[in-house]
Amino acid sequence: MTNPTIITAPEGLPFIEIVREFDAPVAAVYAAYADPLLVAQWLGPDGYDVDLESYDLVSGGHYRYLHTNPAGDVFAFRGSFHTVRPEELIIQTFEWEGMPDSVSLETIRFTSGAAGAARAVIRGWSVFPSVEARDGMVQNGMERGVVEGYGRLDALLAP
Amino acid sequence: MTNPTIITAPEGLPFIEIVREFDAPVAAVYAAYADPLLVAQWLGPDGYDVDLESYDLVSGGHYRYLHTNPAGDVFAFRGSFHTVRPEELIIQTFEWEGMPDSVSLETIRFTSGAAGAARAVIRGWSVFPSVEARDGMVQNGMERGVVEGYGRLDALLAP
Repeated sequence: MTNPTIITAPEGLPFIEIVREFDAPVAAVYAAYADPLLVAQWLGPDGYDVDLESYDLVSGGHYRYLHTNPAGDVFAFRGSFHTVRPEELIIQTFEWEGMPDSVSLETIRFTSGAAGAARAVIRGWSVFPSVEARDGMVQNGMERGVVEGYGRLDALLAP
Repeated sequence: MTNPTIITAPEGLPFIEIVREFDAPVAAVYAAYADPLLVAQWLGPDGYDVDLESYDLVSGGHYRYLHTNPAGDVFAFRGSFHTVRPEELIIQTFEWEGMPDSVSLETIRFTSGAAGAARAVIRGWSVFPSVEARDGMVQNGMERGVVEGYGRLDALLAP
């Protein structure tokens, strides 16, 4: 069983919103973001290898990771953690090194779902340096990576 | 003598562009951004005291500084340095702690001016999480801080 991932890209504005509910409490969902060993099990598209080169999830920290697809192509991503408040908020920069200097800023909020504390909701809000950069991210398979990644996170969280 | 600071806030989009030319080479202008002792002499509005609590200008580093106005009011600002390429590019997050979690992303490019290598141009591009946040920054005296700060930077760079 999996929940829908609702991705919204408003026309003419450089934003992407992602909303996703999980059948698990906020503490468990946040732990899957906070523990590098767990992150490596769910982040990104299905079938990709994840190598977390650095992942210092504190305000002022930074991260870098490598995705390797089944054909052996490597995609590198990196960013800084501007704000980290456990089980509540992560504000981070994000860059795919294949499109250098096109950096987005992501705000990820963790709250309990309407159905109660046993369900968590993640709300992501990404801001891009231009509408074109936002459109490029949407066209480059961002949705597949997010949806498949959250599907594996469901499996990881399953009791 | 001072050069104009051209600030553009496009209608309905969450961006601010700042363009400023200096009568000094890129190396000198960048040094005034890179050396904390120099930064403290020009950053922010006239008459404010600047206390750089941390300022680690490297990719993955971070900063925090306090501005104190003549009345003794303290304004704290902090962010992360996503990318730093000396004399070329700084990409950083920026937050006024008085409006917590409203974070912008700033791209600052240093190039030689059209008149040659003896003049530098700084181009800043800030992206906000909403058009409202951008408008709030414009209304909260951002322009005064930028224009007066660059005016003191002119004085610091004068031969």
